[in-house]
Amino acid sequence: MPQALLIECNDQIGLVHQITGVLYRHGVNIISNQEFVDHQRQRFFMRTEYQGTLDQSIALAELQTLLPSNANIRFARAYTPRILILATKEHHCLGDLLIRHAFAELKAEILGVIANHEQLGQLVQRFDLPFHYLSHRSYTREAHEQALLEVIHAAQPDYLVLAKYMRVLSPQFVAQFPQRIINIHHSFLPAFVGANPYRQAFERGVKIIGATAHFVTDELDQGPIIAQQVMPIDHSHSVDELIQAGREIEKHVLAKALDLVLSERVFLSGNRTVIFD
Amino acid sequence: MPQALLIECNDQIGLVHQITGVLYRHGVNIISNQEFVDHQRQRFFMRTEYQGTLDQSIALAELQTLLPSNANIRFARAYTPRILILATKEHHCLGDLLIRHAFAELKAEILGVIANHEQLGQLVQRFDLPFHYLSHRSYTREAHEQALLEVIHAAQPDYLVLAKYMRVLSPQFVAQFPQRIINIHHSFLPAFVGANPYRQAFERGVKIIGATAHFVTDELDQGPIIAQQVMPIDHSHSVDELIQAGREIEKHVLAKALDLVLSERVFLSGNRTVIFD
Amino acid sequence: MPQALLIECNDQIGLVHQITGVLYRHGVNIISNQEFVDHQRQRFFMRTEYQGTLDQSIALAELQTLLPSNANIRFARAYTPRILILATKEHHCLGDLLIRHAFAELKAEILGVIANHEQLGQLVQRFDLPFHYLSHRSYTREAHEQALLEVIHAAQPDYLVLAKYMRVLSPQFVAQFPQRIINIHHSFLPAFVGANPYRQAFERGVKIIGATAHFVTDELDQGPIIAQQVMPIDHSHSVDELIQAGREIEKHVLAKALDLVLSERVFLSGNRTVIFD
Amino acid sequence: MPQALLIECNDQIGLVHQITGVLYRHGVNIISNQEFVDHQRQRFFMRTEYQGTLDQSIALAELQTLLPSNANIRFARAYTPRILILATKEHHCLGDLLIRHAFAELKAEILGVIANHEQLGQLVQRFDLPFHYLSHRSYTREAHEQALLEVIHAAQPDYLVLAKYMRVLSPQFVAQFPQRIINIHHSFLPAFVGANPYRQAFERGVKIIGATAHFVTDELDQGPIIAQQVMPIDHSHSVDELIQAGREIEKHVLAKALDLVLSERVFLSGNRTVIFD
Repeated sequence: MPQALLIECNDQIGLVHQITGVLYRHGVNIISNQEFVDHQRQRFFMRTEYQGTLDQSIALAELQTLLPSNANIRFARAYTPRILILATKEHHCLGDLLIRHAFAELKAEILGVIANHEQLGQLVQRFDLPFHYLSHRSYTREAHEQALLEVIHAAQPDYLVLAKYMRVLSPQFVAQFPQRIINIHHSFLPAFVGANPYRQAFERGVKIIGATAHFVTDELDQGPIIAQQVMPIDHSHSVDELIQAGREIEKHVLAKALDLVLSERVFLSGNRTVIFD
Repeated sequence: MPQALLIECNDQIGLVHQITGVLYRHGVNIISNQEFVDHQRQRFFMRTEYQGTLDQSIALAELQTLLPSNANIRFARAYTPRILILATKEHHCLGDLLIRHAFAELKAEILGVIANHEQLGQLVQRFDLPFHYLSHRSYTREAHEQALLEVIHAAQPDYLVLAKYMRVLSPQFVAQFPQRIINIHHSFLPAFVGANPYRQAFERGVKIIGATAHFVTDELDQGPIIAQQVMPIDHSHSVDELIQAGREIEKHVLAKALDLVLSERVFLSGNRTVIFD
Repeated sequence: MPQALLIECNDQIGLVHQITGVLYRHGVNIISNQEFVDHQRQRFFMRTEYQGTLDQSIALAELQTLLPSNANIRFARAYTPRILILATKEHHCLGDLLIRHAFAELKAEILGVIANHEQLGQLVQRFDLPFHYLSHRSYTREAHEQALLEVIHAAQPDYLVLAKYMRVLSPQFVAQFPQRIINIHHSFLPAFVGANPYRQAFERGVKIIGATAHFVTDELDQGPIIAQQVMPIDHSHSVDELIQAGREIEKHVLAKALDLVLSERVFLSGNRTVIFD
Repeated sequence: MPQALLIECNDQIGLVHQITGVLYRHGVNIISNQEFVDHQRQRFFMRTEYQGTLDQSIALAELQTLLPSNANIRFARAYTPRILILATKEHHCLGDLLIRHAFAELKAEILGVIANHEQLGQLVQRFDLPFHYLSHRSYTREAHEQALLEVIHAAQPDYLVLAKYMRVLSPQFVAQFPQRIINIHHSFLPAFVGANPYRQAFERGVKIIGATAHFVTDELDQGPIIAQQVMPIDHSHSVDELIQAGREIEKHVLAKALDLVLSERVFLSGNRTVIFD
C-alpha cells in the first residue's frame, strides 16, 4: 500500500500549491495527485500518493496551520485494515472475499464471519477463520444486535462488511459505525429499494439489472453509493434467473467497493461519494 | 423488410408444430423462428420470418382453426410504417432520427414534426419535412391536445414518437393510441420518475445513469419498457454534464426502440415487453 | 437440468415442423425452442427443452428417418458432466470454480486439479479435492503430456478446463479431446495472441481490455470463441494493474463459458460457435 | 471553453508545487487539476483549468524558468478550433457531426467536407457547408492527395477528421499533419487491421465488436488510440448486420474522441495517449 495524504476542507485559492509545498519541503516525491472541488458545497478534496519518508506529525501540524480551520487532514493508515463480515445464507459474496483473502488480495484482514444462519459455517471453516453463528430466532432485534455487538467489540474491526446480510440493522446499531458499514444491495439503487428487488425488476420488465455497494446509514438503502454495476437482461429471464445472474455482479461490485474503501480512496461530500480511483 | 408471421395466444401443447405445419403446407421457407412462453401468464408468443409467397387470408383462416380461440394472429405489415414526431427544444433525438430517415435507415416514413417550441423548426426544414409549431402557451391542456390531435388525424401516423417532448399527455389523449406512442425518458426507469431525472441522479450520487424507451400509458413513466441503456459516471460530473452525457444514450436508446417496434419485434405480455431481437 | 433435444443438420424446408411433430406425438411439452440457420453453410441448429417423458431411442429413430442423412441428433446428457481442471499458479479462476462447485452451482463435478506448479495445492485441499502436481521441469513436453494423460485417463472427464494453465498443449494432445478443452485467454482475441497480452495491450495503448474463453484447437489461440468480456481502462493503468483488473473478467468469462458448455448450449458451425443462451 | 494550462515535461520533484505556485501568484483560481506521470518514460503531464485573468506570456516565461528545459508549456487555445472533414460514402459519422455542429455542440467550426464520392453532397448542403467532391478515379494517389492539399491549405484547418474516409493516406501526406488527423477505424484495434474488419470479425466468430478513434500516423491503423467502444454480438449477426450495428458505435466513438481532442484533453506519451477526461 503506498503512502498517501488525505485532505478535505473548505475550498480556497492556493490549496494545491500550499499542500504540495509542505510535501516538497519534506523532500518526498509525489507519485500521483488527485483533487476535486465540490463547487456546490465549496468543499475541496485531495488524495496524494508519495514516496519517501517524512515526519507525519510535523507535516500535519504544518498543514493545519496553512489550511482552513475545519480541515480534515490525515495520512492513510499504515496497517492492514481489519474487517468483520456479516452474512446470512448466500455464499457468493462471502466466497469471493474468502478466496481473495486467502491469496492476500483483499487489502484487509478478515477477523471472522457472523451469520444469522448456519449454512455458511463449513465454507468459513475451510479457510480457517472464526464463524459466529448468531441466530435471530427467539431474540428481539435489540437482543440480537446486542449479541452482534459483543462479537464486534471483541474483534475491533475497522469495517463491517454486509455480504448479503439479509436483516435490517437498527439506527441505533448503525449510528455506532458511521462510514464503517459497507453493504451490497441487489438492485441498481435507487430503483427497487427494500425487499425482493429482483422480483420487483421482473414485474417492472426492466431490460437491465444491477447491484449497488453503499455505506449504511439509518435510512434503508439511502446511504452514499460507492459502486454500481449492471448487466442486460431480457423477457426470457425468470425471477430465479435474475437472482442467479445478479449474484455475478453483486460479488463484483462488493469487491470493487471494498477495494476502494480499504485503499482509502473514498471521501464523502454530503450523501455523495468522491472517489479517487 | 422480411415477411413475418406474428402470433400471440394462450399456451398449449403442439403450437409450434401446428403453426409451422401451416407454413410448410403453404410451401414457404422459414428463415428464422422465435418463440417465448410466459409461464406465469401461460401465454405463447411467436415471430416467424419466412421466404416465399402464400395467400395470407387462407393461412390466417387455417391458423384460426388450429389455435386457441383468443389467438392474436397477423402478418407483419407490408408497407413502410408512418410516424409523427413530437419534440420540444432538444435536438439530439430528433436530429438522429432525421439523419437516419434521410438515408432510408429508419424503417419508417416521417410524416412531420410537431413541437411546442419553435427552435427545432430550422432543423426540420433542412430535411424538407413539415414542422408544426403548436405552442402550449395560453392554451388549456385540453385545447392544446386538441390542436395536436388535428395534426395527428390529418397525418394518420402508425406511431407517435416522443423525441424529448417535455409535456405530459393526458390519459384521454394516450387512450386514443394504445401501444402506438413511444417515449424516451431520460433516466434508467424506474429510478427517477418525473421531472429533472439528471438532477435527481446527481443528488442521489449514482455511479451510472441511463435512459429508457417505453410505450406511453396513462400512468406517467410506468408504461412497458422497450429498451434501456446506461453509462458510468462519477462524482466529477455536474448536473449539466450529466444532461449532456445522457443525450448520447437517449438518442441511441430511442433509435434502438424504434427499430424494434417498426420491425414488429415487440409484443406485450401484461406490462412487460417480449422482444424478438 | 431440463431435458433437451439437440439437432444439427443440413438445412431444408419443414425441419421445425417435423422435429416438433415427433415431440408432439410423444406427448411431451416444449418449454423453449431455439433454432438457427447458418445460411452461409446451409446448416440448421436447434435446441428444444421439453417436459414429460419419452422413449429417447424410439424418438431418435423417428427423427433419423425424417431428417437429412448427415443429421447429428442427440438428447442432452442426463448425468452431471465431469471436469478436470488444469492450472498453473494463478488462483482466481480456480478459486471461483471451486466456490461454485462447493455450492453445487457449477453444473459439473470437479474430479480434481492438475497443476504444473505446487502453489495451488493448499487451495484445492481446502475443498477436499484431488490435487495432482505434475511439474514440467526436467521433462520433455512429450513426457509431461504423457503424465497429464495418465491422470486424465484415470479420471475420465467429459471436459478439460484450462483455468490459466500457462503451457501450450501439443497438437497431438489437443487432438485427443476435440471440443472438450476449454481455455481462458487473457485478451480480447484476436487482439494480442500469444504471451503477455496485458503487456501488449499496455504497449499498444488500448482503452479497453478483455478476456476470451474458447475451445482449444491445434492452432494457438485460434479455436472457436465461446464467450468474451471487456472492461474500460485508461493511461494510468500499469501492466500490473491491467493484469489485476483483467483477472476479474477472466474468471467471469470462464465461468460463463463453462456454464454454456455444460448446459449443452454451444454448437459449432465451422470455427464459429452457435450459442442458444 | 474554460481556460487551461497544459504542461508536459520530464518528471522531477516539486513540479505540481512550482506550477500551481505560478498560478497562485498570478491570482487565478484553479477549478480542476489533473496530472499523470508516465513512470516508464519519466514524463510528467498536467492539465489545469482555472478562472480569472493572467498575462499568459509572463506566466509562460516564469514557468519556463522553473521547469525542466525540454518542457512543453502552453495555454489552451482561446479560439474555436477549425476542422475539415474527409468522408467517402457513409453518412452516419458525418451526419452526427453535422447535427452537433448545427447546434454548437461540436466545440469546433466545420470548414467543409471533402469526399471522394458525391453521395454525401446533398447532406452537407442541407447544413449550408462547402462540399468538395474530389474523385480519386483517373488520378494517381499523388495527384489526388495534391488536390486534397489544395483544399486543405485554402481552408487552414486545425484538424482533419476522417469520418469513414475509405482511402489510405500516404506517409508523405500524413507527415504534414502530425497529431492533427483523427480517424475512426471500424474495429476494436489492434484486432482486425486493414480492410473489411466486420467480415474479419464475422469469420473469427468474436462475441464483441468495436470501433477505435485514433491519430493517424504513417503506419496503417497503428496510431495512438484516443477512444474505443464495443458492443456484444452473437452468431445470428450477418456481416451486413455487423456493419449496421457497428455504425452506432463508430459515430459515438468518433464524436467522443473529437470532443477530447478539441477540448485539448489529449497528450501523447510515445504511441500512447494520456487523456484528462
